[in-house]
Amino acid sequence: MPCMINSTDPLSKRIVLADWTRKKEDNPIVELLSLAARPGVISFALGLPAADLFPLRAYQQAAEHVLLTDEHALQYGVPIRQLKTQIVNLMAGRGVKCDEDQVSLTTGAQQGMALAARLLLNRGSKVICEETIYSGFQQVIEPFQPEIITVPTDADTGIDVEAVSSVLAESGDQIAFIYTIPDGHNPLGVTLSQDKRRLLAELAGRYGVPIIEDDAYGFLNYHDEPLPPIRALNDQWVFYIGTFSKILAPGLRVGWIISPHKLSAKLSVVKESIDIDTGSFTQRTISAYLGMNDIAAHITRLRWEYGLRRDMMLSALAKYFPHGAAWGIPESGFFVWVSLPPETNTESLLKASIERMQVAFIPGHFFSVSNEGAASHSFRLSFSNSPPPLIEEGVKRLSQIVDKHIYNGRCFGLT
Amino acid sequence: MPCMINSTDPLSKRIVLADWTRKKEDNPIVELLSLAARPGVISFALGLPAADLFPLRAYQQAAEHVLLTDEHALQYGVPIRQLKTQIVNLMAGRGVKCDEDQVSLTTGAQQGMALAARLLLNRGSKVICEETIYSGFQQVIEPFQPEIITVPTDADTGIDVEAVSSVLAESGDQIAFIYTIPDGHNPLGVTLSQDKRRLLAELAGRYGVPIIEDDAYGFLNYHDEPLPPIRALNDQWVFYIGTFSKILAPGLRVGWIISPHKLSAKLSVVKESIDIDTGSFTQRTISAYLGMNDIAAHITRLRWEYGLRRDMMLSALAKYFPHGAAWGIPESGFFVWVSLPPETNTESLLKASIERMQVAFIPGHFFSVSNEGAASHSFRLSFSNSPPPLIEEGVKRLSQIVDKHIYNGRCFGLT
Repeated sequence: MPCMINSTDPLSKRIVLADWTRKKEDNPIVELLSLAARPGVISFALGLPAADLFPLRAYQQAAEHVLLTDEHALQYGVPIRQLKTQIVNLMAGRGVKCDEDQVSLTTGAQQGMALAARLLLNRGSKVICEETIYSGFQQVIEPFQPEIITVPTDADTGIDVEAVSSVLAESGDQIAFIYTIPDGHNPLGVTLSQDKRRLLAELAGRYGVPIIEDDAYGFLNYHDEPLPPIRALNDQWVFYIGTFSKILAPGLRVGWIISPHKLSAKLSVVKESIDIDTGSFTQRTISAYLGMNDIAAHITRLRWEYGLRRDMMLSALAKYFPHGAAWGIPESGFFVWVSLPPETNTESLLKASIERMQVAFIPGHFFSVSNEGAASHSFRLSFSNSPPPLIEEGVKRLSQIVDKHIYNGRCFGLT
Repeated sequence: MPCMINSTDPLSKRIVLADWTRKKEDNPIVELLSLAARPGVISFALGLPAADLFPLRAYQQAAEHVLLTDEHALQYGVPIRQLKTQIVNLMAGRGVKCDEDQVSLTTGAQQGMALAARLLLNRGSKVICEETIYSGFQQVIEPFQPEIITVPTDADTGIDVEAVSSVLAESGDQIAFIYTIPDGHNPLGVTLSQDKRRLLAELAGRYGVPIIEDDAYGFLNYHDEPLPPIRALNDQWVFYIGTFSKILAPGLRVGWIISPHKLSAKLSVVKESIDIDTGSFTQRTISAYLGMNDIAAHITRLRWEYGLRRDMMLSALAKYFPHGAAWGIPESGFFVWVSLPPETNTESLLKASIERMQVAFIPGHFFSVSNEGAASHSFRLSFSNSPPPLIEEGVKRLSQIVDKHIYNGRCFGLT
C-alpha cells in the first residue's frame, strides 16, 4: 500500500464546489426514503408505486429470454428500435401520434427533464413553472441558476394559463421553456382542463416557447375519458416526457422523451454526454417484456388497483378529517393534496405525525418554489404504496394529529 | 385524435437551444456505432469489450435470484449498501483503501464524470486536461463552456506533470479540477509513471485543486505489478471514477465514484437531480452476481484474454506496418495509438480504409481538444472487440492502406 501524500500535509484548503451547490444540504429524498422505510411507519410520503403490482415473474422471463438468446444483451449499443416502436404504440394509446425518430430513451423521467433542461437552458435563462411543483424539477434546473417565474395553479383546472400568457406577452423572447404536469400533477393531484391545454399549446407556438410536459403519471388515470396530453395538440413546441417507472417499475430507470421535429438527434448528443446510453440490457428486457405481455391490460389493472387505493384514501379523509381541512380529487396519478387552515405549519405536523402516529407524508413547503404561501399549510399524501386497509388506518391516525393542530393551536405539544 | 394547433400556424419561429448546443452536429459516436456494426467490417474503432467474455449465464442466474426472491427488486431505493461494500473490496484489490460512505454509484463512468463536473464546475471555470483525451470527457464539460487548459502527454510516462505544475503555479486558484487517465489511457494507451503519480497527487494538495481520475480501464492491466491509482496516494483531493463496464458488461451502466472525505453526500444530491438513482434492479443483480461468483478470477481471465488480443495486435503491427509508423505498447486497457508521418491525414485514411479494406478505427483528430497537432496524423486502434485471427487480418489490411498513404502521398486515390 503506497503511503498517503496528504496525510502529512497541513490541510488548510478545501475543495471548491460549483456555486449552486453551496446551499445544498444532504439529499432530502434519500433521507425521506430511509424514514419511510422505518418499520411500523405507514408512509404516504413518497410517490412509490406498489411493489406487489410489479410483474416480477414476467420480467424475469423476459430477462432470461434476452440473456440466453442474445449474445450482445450486455453490450453497448444504439437505442433499440423495437422499443421505440413499442413506445410509439403506447403513445398512440394516450392519443399522441409520433414516430420512432422523435423518441429518445432516457434513464427515467427525471433524466428526461435533465436532458431537456441541458438542451434548452443557458445560465440565467428564464423558466416558467407553477409555484407549487415537483421538487425534482427544481433540482434539475438549479445548477443553471435560472430565473424562475412562477404562476399559480387552480385547484380544479390546473396551471393558471392566463398568468402564463401575461408572462409570455411581457417577456416571451427571454423564456427558455414552460414546465408543466397536466395529468396527475405532482404534488397537487389536479388535471389540466381541455380548454387550458388548448390555450397553452397555442401560446407555445405563438411565442415560440417550448413546453416540457411531464407525464410521469398520465397513464394511470381514473376517468373514463382521460384527456390526451398537450403533445397531442402541438407536436412542434412540446417535449413530452414519459416513463416506465409507474406503469412497469421504477427500478428499471427507463423513460422517454417525444421531442419536436428534429431535436431528438440533439438530445442524443446530450444523452451520450451524461451516461452514454440507457442500459442496453434493460432496453432489451423491457422490449421483450412488452412483446411477451399485454401492457394495455397491465395498465388497466394498475388503474383499477390504484383507483381502489385512491377511493379508500378519499373516503377515509371524508370520514375522519376535521372541518377546516380540504383536499382535491385526483383523476390521475398517486397524490392527494390536503390543505389546512393558514395558521397550520405542516412541517411541524410531520414531526408530530411520525413520532406519535407513525404516519409519514410530505409537507407542502417541500414543493414550493418560493418557500412561502399556501404550500406551508398543505401536505401531499400518496396513496400508491399502501394497501387499502393501511390507507384507512393511516388517514385515521393522521386525522387525530391534524385535529389537534387545527383545534388546539399550531404549536400544541410539538416539541 | 385532437387536431394539431400548430399545423395551421405559420412557423416562423424555431426552438431556441442552449448556447453550447449550437455547433453540435448529430451524435458522432452513435454514427460510429452504426458504422462499426456494418457486416464485414473489422472494427478497431470503439472501445467495446468483447461480448463473448460477458458472463451471460451467471448474470442471468443472479437476475433470476433477485427477481424471484426480492419483492422490492424493481422498486426505487437507496443505494444498496452491500454493493458498496463489494466495490470497497474491489478497490482494495487495486490498492485503494476507502469505505462505503465514500462510494457513490453512477450510471457508468461517463456519468461519474458528469456528476463530478456538475459538482465542481461553474460556467467559465478553468480545467486542466491533456491535449489528446477521451472525447466523452470533452462532451461532459462542454455545456459549462469552461476554459480548457491543455498539457502534453509523454508517450512513455503519461501526462506532462511539469506542465500541470506550471499552470497551477500561475493560476492554481482558478482551476476547478485536473482530469486524467493514469492507466489504459484513452486514446493514447500510455501508463502514468509512479513518479508522476506522486507528483500529481502532491500538486493537487499543494494547490487545493482536485483530480478527477478516470480509471475505466485500470483493472484490465497486462503487467505483473500494476501501479495503484492516484487515489491510493491522496484520498482528500482525488475523485476516483470506476466502472463495471469493462470488467463485467457496459450494457448494465453501473459505475462508481470514490470521493474525497464528505463529498459523497453532495454527489448524491447531484445524482438524484440527474436520474434519481442507479437502477435498483441492476444494483441488486450485480451485487448478487458478485456474491455468487469470483470477480477476481473473472478479471484475471479478462486480463489474459485481452492480453492475447493486445499481443496479437502488437505483433501484427510489427509484422505488417511500414517504416514511418510508430505505436506505443499499452500496459492496460484496450487501445494502441498509432502515429504516422506528419503529412498524413488519418481522417481521409479512415474513409479509404472502410471503403477499400473494410477496416475501421478512430482518427486521432477526434480526441484532440485543439483539433490540431499530432493527433491529426495518428489514430486509435482498439483490440478489445475482435478475436485474434481477425485482429491480424484487420491490421494486415490496414497496413496496405497506410502503406499507400505514406509512400504514395497523402491524397492518393482518396476521392
